[in-house]
Amino acid sequence: MVEGNVGRICFYRLPENEDLTEGIKKRAEKSNIKAGMLIVIGSLKEAVLGHYKDGRYKSVHIDGPVEIASCMGNVAIDENGEVIIHAHVVVSNEEGEAFGGHLMKDSHVGVMAELVIIEAKGIILQRIFDEKTKLRPLKLS
Amino acid sequence: MVEGNVGRICFYRLPENEDLTEGIKKRAEKSNIKAGMLIVIGSLKEAVLGHYKDGRYKSVHIDGPVEIASCMGNVAIDENGEVIIHAHVVVSNEEGEAFGGHLMKDSHVGVMAELVIIEAKGIILQRIFDEKTKLRPLKLS
Amino acid sequence: MVEGNVGRICFYRLPENEDLTEGIKKRAEKSNIKAGMLIVIGSLKEAVLGHYKDGRYKSVHIDGPVEIASCMGNVAIDENGEVIIHAHVVVSNEEGEAFGGHLMKDSHVGVMAELVIIEAKGIILQRIFDEKTKLRPLKLS
Repeated sequence: MVEGNVGRICFYRLPENEDLTEGIKKRAEKSNIKAGMLIVIGSLKEAVLGHYKDGRYKSVHIDGPVEIASCMGNVAIDENGEVIIHAHVVVSNEEGEAFGGHLMKDSHVGVMAELVIIEAKGIILQRIFDEKTKLRPLKLS
Repeated sequence: MVEGNVGRICFYRLPENEDLTEGIKKRAEKSNIKAGMLIVIGSLKEAVLGHYKDGRYKSVHIDGPVEIASCMGNVAIDENGEVIIHAHVVVSNEEGEAFGGHLMKDSHVGVMAELVIIEAKGIILQRIFDEKTKLRPLKLS
Repeated sequence: MVEGNVGRICFYRLPENEDLTEGIKKRAEKSNIKAGMLIVIGSLKEAVLGHYKDGRYKSVHIDGPVEIASCMGNVAIDENGEVIIHAHVVVSNEEGEAFGGHLMKDSHVGVMAELVIIEAKGIILQRIFDEKTKLRPLKLS
């Protein structure tokens, strides 16, 4: 486990067409947040949803516009100190049908998205590449 | 972006039949919270899910009882200083099938709902009406 | 309502095969957190989703591996001071299809799960058994 203190709570609006994962990363960097939790609501032009199995993510494309019915995750850093966003998402179409998965690149913001990050202070939350799973699990004491 | 400090964390129970959006708003007002993030779990008698397209929300009605599998959002104020709740929701029926969207009026609480709000202090988080999208995006510096 | 101050923000990794509800409870106890909110992302080997109706939870089994597309809830204590986790979950399969409900026992972690708990300090958040609903609603002033 890694236990920090809660720092700032930051609100951002992501504009149309921005890549959601990239957009979250950019905002965390701009606010100098290297550890924290996040939520997003809004909409997407299209969603790319990952499903992990046997060492890789299979991805599903969902055509939009879709609502970001839920998006949550965390902010950490990698081996080189670069910010990594790990987020999972549920999107929904015009009929309300819901689809979910690991938020992947090329999920572009629709009319807009609203991001909230709660900062964790006084800790280093790092991800280290793991050969077995091909993932970067959180390094915890 | 708007960066505040985290204030209180407040827990509420919403009773059967209360309108969920109205109920969240009333609790935020009662606790004098004008900026923050929120989550809700519980159940709904019925859900009204919005899907934004071309300047308006189309809505889908889901008959309940449904579980509130996920509900997240933020608290802000409008041009007149009145509290506005923006929340998105995922609900699920007896078969576990999930439906999602923008939380709209007339989504009434089922047996109960549990709301958590984390307050943002020292900031003004305001929504201003936008003619182009017909939405009230967050006004951010 | 119960209003506390925000304390620590704690990050945990739950390993493969751990029961998710039990795992969250164990982490909260280890960190001595008796009130708070939580989110989880990751994956599950299988999910058991509850749907409340007429005084009981009907459960649906979803075979995995499934992504934990969303998981949120709260930490409280029961009549005896023991930690109770109340969480709802949305999971998604290889096609991205989403299923949701009340997180029940026997939902086992897949490759891993990442848990974040935000602690509420200075309050007692207690659940008391209610004969009518057969649930343990939050006891709020």
